[in-house]
Amino acid sequence: MLRAQVCSSGALSFLMEAHDGLSAAIAERAGFNGLWASGLSIASSLGYRDASEASWSQLVAAVERIVDATQLPVLVDGDGGFGNFNNARLLASKLRQRGAAGVALEDSCFPKMNSLVGDRHPLADIDEFSGRLRAVKDTAADDLVLVARIEALIAGHGMDEALLRAHAYADAGADAILIHSRRSTADEILSFVRAWQNRLPVVIVPTKYYRTPVSTYRRARISTVIWANHSMRAAIAAMQHVCRRIIAEENTASIEPNIATLDEVLELFKYDELANAEARYLPHRLRQ
Amino acid sequence: MLRAQVCSSGALSFLMEAHDGLSAAIAERAGFNGLWASGLSIASSLGYRDASEASWSQLVAAVERIVDATQLPVLVDGDGGFGNFNNARLLASKLRQRGAAGVALEDSCFPKMNSLVGDRHPLADIDEFSGRLRAVKDTAADDLVLVARIEALIAGHGMDEALLRAHAYADAGADAILIHSRRSTADEILSFVRAWQNRLPVVIVPTKYYRTPVSTYRRARISTVIWANHSMRAAIAAMQHVCRRIIAEENTASIEPNIATLDEVLELFKYDELANAEARYLPHRLRQ
Amino acid sequence: MLRAQVCSSGALSFLMEAHDGLSAAIAERAGFNGLWASGLSIASSLGYRDASEASWSQLVAAVERIVDATQLPVLVDGDGGFGNFNNARLLASKLRQRGAAGVALEDSCFPKMNSLVGDRHPLADIDEFSGRLRAVKDTAADDLVLVARIEALIAGHGMDEALLRAHAYADAGADAILIHSRRSTADEILSFVRAWQNRLPVVIVPTKYYRTPVSTYRRARISTVIWANHSMRAAIAAMQHVCRRIIAEENTASIEPNIATLDEVLELFKYDELANAEARYLPHRLRQ
Amino acid sequence: MLRAQVCSSGALSFLMEAHDGLSAAIAERAGFNGLWASGLSIASSLGYRDASEASWSQLVAAVERIVDATQLPVLVDGDGGFGNFNNARLLASKLRQRGAAGVALEDSCFPKMNSLVGDRHPLADIDEFSGRLRAVKDTAADDLVLVARIEALIAGHGMDEALLRAHAYADAGADAILIHSRRSTADEILSFVRAWQNRLPVVIVPTKYYRTPVSTYRRARISTVIWANHSMRAAIAAMQHVCRRIIAEENTASIEPNIATLDEVLELFKYDELANAEARYLPHRLRQ
Repeated sequence: MLRAQVCSSGALSFLMEAHDGLSAAIAERAGFNGLWASGLSIASSLGYRDASEASWSQLVAAVERIVDATQLPVLVDGDGGFGNFNNARLLASKLRQRGAAGVALEDSCFPKMNSLVGDRHPLADIDEFSGRLRAVKDTAADDLVLVARIEALIAGHGMDEALLRAHAYADAGADAILIHSRRSTADEILSFVRAWQNRLPVVIVPTKYYRTPVSTYRRARISTVIWANHSMRAAIAAMQHVCRRIIAEENTASIEPNIATLDEVLELFKYDELANAEARYLPHRLRQ
Repeated sequence: MLRAQVCSSGALSFLMEAHDGLSAAIAERAGFNGLWASGLSIASSLGYRDASEASWSQLVAAVERIVDATQLPVLVDGDGGFGNFNNARLLASKLRQRGAAGVALEDSCFPKMNSLVGDRHPLADIDEFSGRLRAVKDTAADDLVLVARIEALIAGHGMDEALLRAHAYADAGADAILIHSRRSTADEILSFVRAWQNRLPVVIVPTKYYRTPVSTYRRARISTVIWANHSMRAAIAAMQHVCRRIIAEENTASIEPNIATLDEVLELFKYDELANAEARYLPHRLRQ
Repeated sequence: MLRAQVCSSGALSFLMEAHDGLSAAIAERAGFNGLWASGLSIASSLGYRDASEASWSQLVAAVERIVDATQLPVLVDGDGGFGNFNNARLLASKLRQRGAAGVALEDSCFPKMNSLVGDRHPLADIDEFSGRLRAVKDTAADDLVLVARIEALIAGHGMDEALLRAHAYADAGADAILIHSRRSTADEILSFVRAWQNRLPVVIVPTKYYRTPVSTYRRARISTVIWANHSMRAAIAAMQHVCRRIIAEENTASIEPNIATLDEVLELFKYDELANAEARYLPHRLRQ
Repeated sequence: MLRAQVCSSGALSFLMEAHDGLSAAIAERAGFNGLWASGLSIASSLGYRDASEASWSQLVAAVERIVDATQLPVLVDGDGGFGNFNNARLLASKLRQRGAAGVALEDSCFPKMNSLVGDRHPLADIDEFSGRLRAVKDTAADDLVLVARIEALIAGHGMDEALLRAHAYADAGADAILIHSRRSTADEILSFVRAWQNRLPVVIVPTKYYRTPVSTYRRARISTVIWANHSMRAAIAAMQHVCRRIIAEENTASIEPNIATLDEVLELFKYDELANAEARYLPHRLRQ
């Protein structure tokens, strides 16, 4: 299903960021067809920095909560695979076991630093990273969409390097290419796409160049747009606002209309299913 | 520090709900002096129902992320202790190890159902629950504030039962009493407080009776008010809103002004400390 | 595969205890065809008592390590399911996800006490426990063999109660019945089997009545024998012996001939596969 | 306490390997005064290879079980710290929180390969590794003994490199130096010790050069000997033996005299404490 979305040459598809069971359930109810288990958002929700602080098994545990909370396919931000080819294939096999639909691996070194932070983003050796891709492909081929994420533009290595890497990663077995940019316009991305000529489907993350209309991506025959951290950032703003209001007012009455009701929480997590199951599985006398 | 807040006979103190590292860091920055690691909110963020679905070790892991993200004292919603006296003391010792400042135990049975959901809330035997309190007290006495939470009013057993239990739990060594109510006014709570006469400090959770002004609690010499789930509910509303907008607009430009910036995320988790530490600990040639 | 072993009316099959990846790998190499993820042994290896101290998610994590270390089907000792029907079905779905082949649920209350310890083993209500079985069946039916374990003899309730429960659990959908006894002879077990007349396959755990020859079980057409804790108990004796010798001798030379060599460890965990994979996935210049 | 053992210039002390709660409890009962939470043994017990397959948080969880099972100080084999200075200090702070008494960091790269396996052991840059040590020192100074482990001899870089590194790591704040060798005699170790002249206490791991009598180490004024994997290797041999016997004999009667009794298991984990606590905390009528 993720394969159909990410890899189709047809309609543009969208993945919405999720960082826990709650954000995943909300994105599904809102109508998204796929989720992006964002490294930055998951790290933030855990109180870690997006710099390889959370362990690979903590990432897997977070992904498990996301997968279990929805029916949607989940593409996981697997950073660089948390080490070499062996770590990458171990991560992939565990993500597959937890029910993830795909993993994106980036050509960074371990430990990584978030692509949008600072200026030090040493790239992995092309052959070494291709080895990580091949190892994942050989381990989890049929069950996991493998997206190769190129950090060459982020790292300031230019378009030729980005294309060189994209072709190497396609040769290594990637199912799609995620080309990342930190520019405030999509120019760089669109140049890449023109030169790439859709050898493999292209995935983009317009966090910085958010002003570009989506019609541009459709015309460019981009496959998938990832809204990579917006639920997390919306939650931050809302929690900041509510905290400040409660401190100032020493009361929650005025914020009640603007926050979810408890009934919405119960609906989101299907408490009615539990009540129904009690009726089915628990003897009547124990239900009093 | 939590002891001073919860157990002082002086000023009313407030605890703000947190359910992960992110919500904890936000509450601290906003100016709260203590946190409530809410069972409902933690369960929801994990995609579980607040019905003893999350394991005690999953709760401990969530509390660890909360404690690590702030300097604030954290009072943990420990449900009924996840079993008998032995489970309760094991939970308490693990929470203490993770740096929690206190634990609230409620006189419910395992598995529990959230106090505000449904009508089936069988109470624990008074002596059996007192044994749980004593076991926790003997295990973690000096390092962990022990709050006994009374579900008698929730369960419809009336004021006499609530008071009987409060006195028994005080005898068992509780440091404070949390009296819970699901009425939409504070009447029940205030009746309890009058009869209780502050034998031990009183903690309340005005989720349902939120219209009562805080001056009422000050007059009643209540010790602590817990805002038990408002960050989580604010986050839900915000994430729902953003998801719907992105689906409708196929773009994030219009929501950008209303969500946290990436710089705010970086500031919240002290990415500058990491940059400074790199300068201190990483050889210059490896920082290129 | 476990279904074929446990549920066949033909040959008697054997399951060997495992409590971690190491003991699982060893049992597989020795030639066993299936494993029993023992609650007592897993608790002991974690340093817990077999009294519901380890959380359900800690059990799941231990089972994951066992499953990943072998190709064998693993039947998991799920205690009573860690709570009610809802906890039991959650446990079952997680065990299935980790690749377990079956789960045995016993009709005990939570928290439990090990069947061979003490005299207090309150039994679950028959209908309530049947609800747990039905809930697991409805959740994980096709992928997980469901064994209902009867503690009636352990708890001193006699044969009629044991048979009553066996029939109820068969009605509830169990695939096999595990009848447990703490007597030093198999008489009790054999009486049960005669009366039961193989309505469902029978599984036994001859920890206490180990002197009975296996031919007796074959004649009785018992389906499966579980050697429930013998690797753990062998490991204890060996580690005690080695510790004492090293303390006495301040040297390991004399014990070297009696412990596994490092080469055996490397062989057990296929370090050669890693070396081969390096040759395949790691560029030559990075292998120096 | 570990500081006194490892860092004293007086008596030679010994640390026994532990890999889980069970092996830790056994080593304590046998009379050891300190434990070595071995990376190889923990990895093996988890079914991983000692090649950075287990995540840092899985190591922390294993150490927690070891620490909780005994009163002994535990020195943790922290590999190279699972990444750079930031990963190393995060690991150290978590180990301290779990109650570890010390951590040994080796100057290897991530992912690592076990020192005794294969011939590829690239060393970390001296300055970069010194930065890891300084970061740990600044994070966990007073509460955690910091042992710097030198892999120069393992990696074939010779004595001068080993000494150069030892002095650099002493300058960086290490409390002791662990000098590792894979030779079958202690010559290399003794050369190092002579040249080092006890600037800091020396820790050794005579897994390969086990024939050397301990009097040699005493004369050389070595501080601490680690028996690094012998409980695990004893357990392997015993479990292999028992598995083979059970398969051959289809019975456990003949092995019963040679494995621990259930009573020994109960004694090891203090089931009597639980029975006593029941008498103290559980109402009499609920104990029936």
